[in-house]
Amino acid sequence: MTHDPLPSWNDGPNKQAILDFVAAVTKEGGEHFVPVEDRVATFDNDGTLWCEQPLYNQAVFAVDRIRALAPDHPEWQAQQPFQAILTNDRDALANLSKQDIAAVVTSTHAGMTTDEFALTVRDWIATANHPRFDQLYTECVYQPMVELLDYLRANGFQTWIVSGGGVDFMRVFAEAVYGIPPAQVIGSSGKVRFEPRDGQPVFVKLPELSSYDDKEGKPENIHLHVGRSPILAFGNSDGDQAMLEYTDSGDGSRLMLIVHHDDAEREYAYDRDSSIGKLDTAWDEATEKGWLVVSMKDDWTQIFSNGR
Amino acid sequence: MTHDPLPSWNDGPNKQAILDFVAAVTKEGGEHFVPVEDRVATFDNDGTLWCEQPLYNQAVFAVDRIRALAPDHPEWQAQQPFQAILTNDRDALANLSKQDIAAVVTSTHAGMTTDEFALTVRDWIATANHPRFDQLYTECVYQPMVELLDYLRANGFQTWIVSGGGVDFMRVFAEAVYGIPPAQVIGSSGKVRFEPRDGQPVFVKLPELSSYDDKEGKPENIHLHVGRSPILAFGNSDGDQAMLEYTDSGDGSRLMLIVHHDDAEREYAYDRDSSIGKLDTAWDEATEKGWLVVSMKDDWTQIFSNGR
Repeated sequence: MTHDPLPSWNDGPNKQAILDFVAAVTKEGGEHFVPVEDRVATFDNDGTLWCEQPLYNQAVFAVDRIRALAPDHPEWQAQQPFQAILTNDRDALANLSKQDIAAVVTSTHAGMTTDEFALTVRDWIATANHPRFDQLYTECVYQPMVELLDYLRANGFQTWIVSGGGVDFMRVFAEAVYGIPPAQVIGSSGKVRFEPRDGQPVFVKLPELSSYDDKEGKPENIHLHVGRSPILAFGNSDGDQAMLEYTDSGDGSRLMLIVHHDDAEREYAYDRDSSIGKLDTAWDEATEKGWLVVSMKDDWTQIFSNGR
Repeated sequence: MTHDPLPSWNDGPNKQAILDFVAAVTKEGGEHFVPVEDRVATFDNDGTLWCEQPLYNQAVFAVDRIRALAPDHPEWQAQQPFQAILTNDRDALANLSKQDIAAVVTSTHAGMTTDEFALTVRDWIATANHPRFDQLYTECVYQPMVELLDYLRANGFQTWIVSGGGVDFMRVFAEAVYGIPPAQVIGSSGKVRFEPRDGQPVFVKLPELSSYDDKEGKPENIHLHVGRSPILAFGNSDGDQAMLEYTDSGDGSRLMLIVHHDDAEREYAYDRDSSIGKLDTAWDEATEKGWLVVSMKDDWTQIFSNGR
């Protein structure tokens, strides 16, 4: 019996397509062989590697931060989106875009150093619990995806995160949780200024978004950071469509995949009508072009690493 | 007799300091040991890895491109810096800053795709010769530095370029010439737009500078791209001073180095008064803080790989 590198994936056409793709691109002398340096795989984070419902995890962090900082900002009581956050207006919160959240995080943390920010995230991520699953957010990562990341790296792939989430936020846990080092985490980013503080140079966070890593921003940032087209890309929403198109447009073997959240029992079920993780036009394009649509319900034997 | 990993370096305190540093940070269980993932080394390019006189090589490329494109741009005859370039005004050219050059390259190539741009650079770099050394620009790289890059990688270091030069320009040759893959090349960059052209998605270069990678821009970009502080940094001018300060500011063993161009016979001699590669305040800080100042004349047995 051979070792199964993807034990949390049910046998079926999607699992088989992944195994076949990796076998083909790593077979020296084979017609689909890809040299190690070109084995670039890019993954969205929210909804692809970890749970993004009922709110993006970073939005929950932002909400918690704004509540903690509110006593020093009386003006927030009459200012959106702060007011919605402080009054716990769930409808308004659910409609915050990733860009709103990035703007809130950026403005809220302006003046802080990047080290101070990282400490704040570290404290939060070590203690905050998901409201439904009652476990740490880092325990809400998808076990089948962690197995896939490991499997790809074992086959010479570089695994990159390309997410609308903040790069300074994700880097705090990406290495421990996904095995992805800081240099391979691409995300939305705010401007920083390098300057001495108490005789020691630091990066001060400025209240200005530098890059919003969603939609076309994803391939643009892949070009800037990686300088090579991915041969495998995995997303779950229309925000990943441009990255999947970019991956599909290159020569040679390519594999494009989408997580379909169709498992209300074990996780969530949402697609075309969701404000978070909307999967509509990317799904149509997947059907048209033969990208793989992975069913959480049918393809995954378990969702989280604790067996749930 | 043991193998000398740096044969183009004369024995002396600077070579010894490099060897000692690498031995110390790679000695498992030693007090200065640094884990592989933290062995980040950053190198300036112009004047540190290859020759930057009498003009930055990318400025020569820009000049050649502007001459080639001039027939389609009659307005350039009366517009600076194009006029200076087209009339070969050497004084004006020598005073173009890297930012001027980046702006010229960016505006000149707006509308081109990144693939088209890369082809243009590839053609140029394969044929254009340095005016004094009468050899390809890629043959004007410093052999002692190529040896150092190899030596560091053999000891588990990641070697990164962090240069004021354009990232799309340097990536064309960095892997073949320095062994540095595209993802580890950081430079100045223009904005690009991901869009379909003839049914195929491409990156179109826009006439807007996105990041100018010099001075404080260097540590800011290291933070964005690497997400870790270097433990070794090598530059040659005041434009590298912030990167050296950032490297020096971290905990544990750190090595900061500067190439001093003091060899008019084999290369060039310039420092405090040069418009290109000015080395003034960074030199003072090096003296004050004990950063290594490498003498091209005394420390290097040869400059280029062809033995010159």
